[in-house]
Amino acid sequence: MMPLPGRFLTSVLVRRDGDLFLFDSGEGTQVSMKMLNLKWKKISAVFISHMHADHVTGLPGILMLSSQVDRTEPLYIVGPQKLRDYVESSRRILDMYINYEIRFIPVETGVVFSGDGFTIQAFPLIHTKPCYGYALVEERRKGEFFPEKAEALGIPRGKLWGMLQNGGTVELEDGRIIDSSMVMGEARDGRKISYVTDTAYFESIADYVHDSDILFCEGMFEKALAATAREKRHMTSYEAGLVARDSCSRILCLQHYSPRYSDKELKILERDAKEVFPDTVLTKDRMTFAVPLKD
Amino acid sequence: MMPLPGRFLTSVLVRRDGDLFLFDSGEGTQVSMKMLNLKWKKISAVFISHMHADHVTGLPGILMLSSQVDRTEPLYIVGPQKLRDYVESSRRILDMYINYEIRFIPVETGVVFSGDGFTIQAFPLIHTKPCYGYALVEERRKGEFFPEKAEALGIPRGKLWGMLQNGGTVELEDGRIIDSSMVMGEARDGRKISYVTDTAYFESIADYVHDSDILFCEGMFEKALAATAREKRHMTSYEAGLVARDSCSRILCLQHYSPRYSDKELKILERDAKEVFPDTVLTKDRMTFAVPLKD
Repeated sequence: MMPLPGRFLTSVLVRRDGDLFLFDSGEGTQVSMKMLNLKWKKISAVFISHMHADHVTGLPGILMLSSQVDRTEPLYIVGPQKLRDYVESSRRILDMYINYEIRFIPVETGVVFSGDGFTIQAFPLIHTKPCYGYALVEERRKGEFFPEKAEALGIPRGKLWGMLQNGGTVELEDGRIIDSSMVMGEARDGRKISYVTDTAYFESIADYVHDSDILFCEGMFEKALAATAREKRHMTSYEAGLVARDSCSRILCLQHYSPRYSDKELKILERDAKEVFPDTVLTKDRMTFAVPLKD
Repeated sequence: MMPLPGRFLTSVLVRRDGDLFLFDSGEGTQVSMKMLNLKWKKISAVFISHMHADHVTGLPGILMLSSQVDRTEPLYIVGPQKLRDYVESSRRILDMYINYEIRFIPVETGVVFSGDGFTIQAFPLIHTKPCYGYALVEERRKGEFFPEKAEALGIPRGKLWGMLQNGGTVELEDGRIIDSSMVMGEARDGRKISYVTDTAYFESIADYVHDSDILFCEGMFEKALAATAREKRHMTSYEAGLVARDSCSRILCLQHYSPRYSDKELKILERDAKEVFPDTVLTKDRMTFAVPLKD
């Protein structure tokens, strides 16, 4: 909510194949983009959790920076209704040079964006103003095809192989019925990346972010300040740990620390979360994570 | 106009006695404020040159940061009429927590702010939208009082000394008339700090910033790109050098570089300015300057 030396405001950038997705855009996000020196062409979509300044005042800079790279596709902006007002009034008042189309999608619970093999889903959080979390969810991918199994079964190459690869069932000339499961491995889980901030703790968060490969979650206060956190509609890092544990997530990335903690004191937040979820990481500005395919 | 790693957007902060004055507030200004670790209590006034995003999108953060320090005085915001709209719509849309009074002063040529012993003056620049430069101008201070001269002249301590210190004339018991100039040094010039960006070059800038102790001036392009600069309503560093020379300023602080120049290539801008004005400094983020009293 407030910057410190070496701590910009909130933002998470996800790169997936050719897409970049930005979750929140606090002041300084375009500076971090520059520092990362990404070879980027475009941000496909921006997802804003809620209309507090520390989550959106970097957006005008991102919109302008996006005019410096070639793009023909529109930029999708997903967020609360007031976000449209914010973007439109910023464009009007600041005469922002924007050379591409912006398409606004009002956020509501459910799928808010989709692409080839994935959706981005929004879910409601509990904060001092309307607020949503987001999860990028990949579809299950088909299992691996084993050509050696198809050959051993005497299935001729060509059309029949294709039908089996697409999950079909085929009948051979000798009358045998071959099901795709006889030549394909099991369907493989897709990946899931979840983003949760700002919110008071409540149990169903774990349902929304169930089975995340990476869970970015606020852990603003230490466990001893649970009452303060609840009053301000924020979470302790211990509660973030509970969400990570109960959602069976793989890694918890803590974010959105209170400025009351110096960099050194952030260890307190890490310790509290690790009490219930050992695979906890204290994120820092411009830290990067790879999320490999599960096989 | 665009950040680079290690180059935030435009802003100059002036501390004078108990006051802090901020000239422009590009994205990241509050981060630099934190990095500087100033023991600050309040910003007295903010002066915005023009309503382009790279000069104002850091303002909401500064306004919020200012709610974290004790203040009872209002914060004055000076700038184009649209600035009021920007601040008001930001407050409305972002529910910004601001616990002090904001007083908006529309900028026009002349004195826009004044305090004990100084004024801040605005002057028109030539850009793609209405734009103003600013100069902080101290009043001339009275000359130094020399008690040894007063004693040598046999002037009794007390009321007569006070009258002479205030520039008056006194008659002694023996009939002699003593003028304050007989016991005081010459009036001393105040200091002047000028801030010029964004603008095409024109000769009268030198009049507005005449006799500056420090002239912060844009020098966006190299001399060879003078036509580009003029077309975009910006200045070359060579032209900034001309302004510094013709205004008889003491130091030229170049700022607002084009992102086309890497940190190393900025030397080109420095070289061009030094051709006409040797006392040129390439400013960097969070560089600080002291402006001592002239005596």
